[in-house]
Amino acid sequence: MGVFDSMLEASKRSRGVSYAIREVVLPARELEKKGIKVLHLNIGDPNKYDFDTPQHIKDALYQATLKGYNGYAPSEGYVELREAIVTRENHRNNIHYDIDDICVTTGVTESLQILLNACLNPKDDLLIPGPTYPQYNLITRFVGATPIPYRCIEEEGWQPDVDDIRKKISQKTKGIVIINPNNPTGALYSKEVIKSIIDIAGEHNVPIISDEIYDDLTFDGEQIATASLAGDVPIITFNGFSKVYLVPGWRVGYVLFHHSGVLDEIEDAFLRIARSRLCASSVCQQALIQALKGPQDHIQEVVSKLRKRRDFSYKRLNEIPGISTAKPDGAFYIFPRIDAMKQKIWKNDKEFVLQLLKETHVLVVHGSGFCSIYGKDHFRAVILPTMETLETAFDKLEIFMKKYAT
Amino acid sequence: MGVFDSMLEASKRSRGVSYAIREVVLPARELEKKGIKVLHLNIGDPNKYDFDTPQHIKDALYQATLKGYNGYAPSEGYVELREAIVTRENHRNNIHYDIDDICVTTGVTESLQILLNACLNPKDDLLIPGPTYPQYNLITRFVGATPIPYRCIEEEGWQPDVDDIRKKISQKTKGIVIINPNNPTGALYSKEVIKSIIDIAGEHNVPIISDEIYDDLTFDGEQIATASLAGDVPIITFNGFSKVYLVPGWRVGYVLFHHSGVLDEIEDAFLRIARSRLCASSVCQQALIQALKGPQDHIQEVVSKLRKRRDFSYKRLNEIPGISTAKPDGAFYIFPRIDAMKQKIWKNDKEFVLQLLKETHVLVVHGSGFCSIYGKDHFRAVILPTMETLETAFDKLEIFMKKYAT
Repeated sequence: MGVFDSMLEASKRSRGVSYAIREVVLPARELEKKGIKVLHLNIGDPNKYDFDTPQHIKDALYQATLKGYNGYAPSEGYVELREAIVTRENHRNNIHYDIDDICVTTGVTESLQILLNACLNPKDDLLIPGPTYPQYNLITRFVGATPIPYRCIEEEGWQPDVDDIRKKISQKTKGIVIINPNNPTGALYSKEVIKSIIDIAGEHNVPIISDEIYDDLTFDGEQIATASLAGDVPIITFNGFSKVYLVPGWRVGYVLFHHSGVLDEIEDAFLRIARSRLCASSVCQQALIQALKGPQDHIQEVVSKLRKRRDFSYKRLNEIPGISTAKPDGAFYIFPRIDAMKQKIWKNDKEFVLQLLKETHVLVVHGSGFCSIYGKDHFRAVILPTMETLETAFDKLEIFMKKYAT
Repeated sequence: MGVFDSMLEASKRSRGVSYAIREVVLPARELEKKGIKVLHLNIGDPNKYDFDTPQHIKDALYQATLKGYNGYAPSEGYVELREAIVTRENHRNNIHYDIDDICVTTGVTESLQILLNACLNPKDDLLIPGPTYPQYNLITRFVGATPIPYRCIEEEGWQPDVDDIRKKISQKTKGIVIINPNNPTGALYSKEVIKSIIDIAGEHNVPIISDEIYDDLTFDGEQIATASLAGDVPIITFNGFSKVYLVPGWRVGYVLFHHSGVLDEIEDAFLRIARSRLCASSVCQQALIQALKGPQDHIQEVVSKLRKRRDFSYKRLNEIPGISTAKPDGAFYIFPRIDAMKQKIWKNDKEFVLQLLKETHVLVVHGSGFCSIYGKDHFRAVILPTMETLETAFDKLEIFMKKYAT
């Protein structure tokens, strides 16, 4: 009889996996276990604050389960949902997709997992924004490839540094990722910047991976879909319902392939992988057909609430000593710089965040979790809480900064 | 300006990806486009036939969305759901899990993806049943490891061949997969076989990965949870709600870690990867708390319907010339042998399946899609359709066999 006396080893690829956004949650939970109220400015989930799924989408979910949409959906997603996405792309972006170029997935996360498995070999490079949504980093490493962060320029409201992209692109580069509007910076990319990145992609024969999950959540300008400017450069767009339709927990996203043939192999690999698993939640997919077809009024309400909170957060944060911030134009994040890091009070931005949590019970996420180069000495806060909560949180931050920063 | 003139290459790992279960669906869809009615004996989805989600689970889904469970769930799953799973394991299997040893995922598929990423390095081996549910093969290859099929013995109702496992286990083996009840064979594993496999695992210091998604769907005996016999051998169990609670499209499964410390590293890696993504559908998870806590009467109804269809399918298939089959004891599949393959009428079992589809419009899945060694010259049919449909399908199969087999 064997006696298990030795620890079984985890895989090499799993060793480095950690996730900034979640890492700071565990110490916050410890505080909460002691009965302490934590002000959460860390979670990109509008439904945790005073935003709610529109009633007609909730009703559509019930109708979907009653009508029997509880079995497997087609692996690529229901035809009706993909048709509704075709219509949205047509109306919003004047782009004409075929439904066969759309695949519905379990959130954008699954689109990203499948795509990177379909297009990256070990030792390939993927250009990603610095700072970035951390899963771009993580999943690229999981498939054995290397994420190369390109600089985004804080002084220009975190627009991508086109020269830096040009400098870093090489034979090993298999794609350029853009996230517009951006998580974690809230940057909304200008037409000129998008066009320049498309030009670079065209010159180097690489596709653009364009994450547009926050597309309708903009405060001053309109978001421009990358594919609408693409010319003959292939664009793989990620989108979903989590943010704009206020159903983040339902986990329904999708991928759009825009190209004239050159992506055939990658798209085919994507679809073969997608068909090798089952489907995104059938019942939620059915309800989201109604989300796209039904009233869209909630979007303006959400944007108008967020705009006020953005205006306030931007103004208030810039008044706090040791803190300065660029103005976000979209999504629901702000990414302030901790100028006071220069004083070497904290070892790094994570220590800053943990001390802030401990002393003030305000929870934000350290910037280096979004990019160790271009994100460090910053933090990400969400602008989702009510004005009252934001005010309380920033007041506490001000007292904290006045105590430490000089 | 760049001109895209060259095809972008898909990754090497994606090249071999194909999925037997889906592969035969495309030709069937072509027939359906022409208005031809196809008899589907290919899909392991009870909700596509005359089985339906219990009403109280549908109502619980509506209550969950109304109560606001539309934002992200904890990455590990809601505490209340994991508590209800603890209770089920306690009552059904007399196993005492801690909720921290449970993680809720997007179906068993995601548990499998995360686990194999957490525990396999390239060049490792994983022992899998032959024939197997194809994702074990696919995902093992995706992480660069090698799936090694062990023989299951058709003459013994497809029980695993313990000697073959012993022969194939090596220093490179990082786990032994068992699927009980089995997809695609419907085998229900005996206590003796399970114990023997546990002994081998113990002698070689490897964990068992036990897929028990069909656990309550058995016709003669009771399914025995591997972990209930484990002793000090670590068992990683996959389970979920798709089959027993008739919500396959909702995509909610879970993993259970049973061990006394030796799996700590792998479990920790699993949870770190799980926390690096978001969650399984929040609203469906909430509804499934009520599935576990509410009435369970539907299970006996499902089993009794399936038992009748199993009895009929087993008897009828064995009457057909050129076909013989073992008797399934669980799940909802039957895996007959095409004895007539000896006559070399068809190049392989896939050709048999495609010709059967073309001539009779009956759709089953070729056995080699479940294992090129131990599955070939067979096909998998589901026993889910009504007696009338089964009868029609088997009558057509009989005519087909009489035409070709002598």
